[in-house]
Amino acid sequence: MKQLMDSTVAVVGLGLMGASLGGALRGKCARVVGVARRAEVVETALARGFVDEGTTDLIAGVRDADVVVLSTPVRVIVQQLAEIAPHLRPGCVVMDLGSTKTEIVAAMDRLLPAPIQPLGAHPMCGKETSGIEVAEVTLYQGRTFILTPLARTTPETLALGVALAEAVGAKPLVLEADRQDYLVGTVSHLPYLLACALVATADVTTSKDPAVWKIVAGGFRDTSRVAGSDVQMMLDILMTNQAHVLDAVKVFDQQLQALARMVEAGDENGLRAALTAIRNTRKEMFP
Amino acid sequence: MKQLMDSTVAVVGLGLMGASLGGALRGKCARVVGVARRAEVVETALARGFVDEGTTDLIAGVRDADVVVLSTPVRVIVQQLAEIAPHLRPGCVVMDLGSTKTEIVAAMDRLLPAPIQPLGAHPMCGKETSGIEVAEVTLYQGRTFILTPLARTTPETLALGVALAEAVGAKPLVLEADRQDYLVGTVSHLPYLLACALVATADVTTSKDPAVWKIVAGGFRDTSRVAGSDVQMMLDILMTNQAHVLDAVKVFDQQLQALARMVEAGDENGLRAALTAIRNTRKEMFP
Repeated sequence: MKQLMDSTVAVVGLGLMGASLGGALRGKCARVVGVARRAEVVETALARGFVDEGTTDLIAGVRDADVVVLSTPVRVIVQQLAEIAPHLRPGCVVMDLGSTKTEIVAAMDRLLPAPIQPLGAHPMCGKETSGIEVAEVTLYQGRTFILTPLARTTPETLALGVALAEAVGAKPLVLEADRQDYLVGTVSHLPYLLACALVATADVTTSKDPAVWKIVAGGFRDTSRVAGSDVQMMLDILMTNQAHVLDAVKVFDQQLQALARMVEAGDENGLRAALTAIRNTRKEMFP
Repeated sequence: MKQLMDSTVAVVGLGLMGASLGGALRGKCARVVGVARRAEVVETALARGFVDEGTTDLIAGVRDADVVVLSTPVRVIVQQLAEIAPHLRPGCVVMDLGSTKTEIVAAMDRLLPAPIQPLGAHPMCGKETSGIEVAEVTLYQGRTFILTPLARTTPETLALGVALAEAVGAKPLVLEADRQDYLVGTVSHLPYLLACALVATADVTTSKDPAVWKIVAGGFRDTSRVAGSDVQMMLDILMTNQAHVLDAVKVFDQQLQALARMVEAGDENGLRAALTAIRNTRKEMFP
């Protein structure tokens, strides 16, 4: 198997994550080929130097690649795996950047023929903005880059995934797919639903009062920020991580109701103890 | 009644809000007298130029003031109103910067003798950090500064409150106390409880897995930020705005459960419509 430096890397999907990855990989591999549906996105990727070559033809883009990185919404990734499978070079490594991994690695195992090497990945650098307009080659720097190998993934393939993550400045972290889905269900997908429900709450209550627009402060802005995330991306994530997301919502609801009961009962000592512990926990999380 | 420019302003409580207000008012009034419990805080306020004079003696600090601004936690404000009431000059204007207003304006009305003029206030510039260490004279610039006059508040007193808000660069907004408490219950106190319940959720579930610390991403960080707020301040807020906060939690829970039911049912069309509407609403909120 080729080293990263000698590899042609095809990046499929030139949104925030794909275009940024392509730009960060240029010079660290033989060639970056960008694939996007729309010609103007390919042109932008070329003009901004995110790719060496570009095409709107998926098969033409991946046919000669040593490494293919699918950077599209989760369920588009599953479709594209089926489309590209018959056309890949033997020994080609197929990675993806989807936020949920269980369904994708199962699809990789099912759809990719034996000579093709699969490796799931999920870099933790999403933003609530999306699209090539906000792409930047520094996006991955210092970020955790989760890698979820399959049983059939060889040590050489995993090493190439590690090298790719490090080449873009990220920190590789190898996790089992279901474990990663459980973790991001709580630390990423749950916050999204909370942000959405918070905006919906203001929408059906206080937003009737024009004064509210003048007093919406930093707390609301921060807590609701991720409600601005791309809807199709989030739909794919929620639909492919239902069980973990629903579990997280259940535990969250228990925690919120416990706090609300103390507020209702005027249980100041209980509330002080709980809020102090939570404040300290968050300080440990973000020192 | 004196104009702001000729007034001695006593700021009681030299935390983030009080010290910043004092610093922003210097030069816009005759004199800023800072009052804090701890001598080292008074010294810091003097050293950093937030006040012209300072004292740890509450009564000595407010006795000669034309304007008193209480900048302590909500229920400390209520206690301090009782303590200072017998010692104020006739015609003195007493303001506060507490986040909830109904209990405070009721206490002002009850505790301040007729020659004293009361005016509730709530500038929307809290942070999750607190204390004089993070104070800055620019804190109020461009922020909404809610004013909640009482029935006995004269137009001259309200005008002085408006002048004070504008002097520190803020935008005054006159609201009825209960209406302000309803609005901030949803846009400020609810986000706090959500942030806390989110941290508590991670604490009882995923935080058992050391990998979670490497993948906690921006979404979690932003959504949980206000869980770092000062606990005593938040306790006072929650305990003096129970009904509105609990109503907001109820509506929020309905909204969250509605989203969760669509996730559970795999109702993609319903979810797409809801998440798209929410995304658009948030864009309207923060253009």
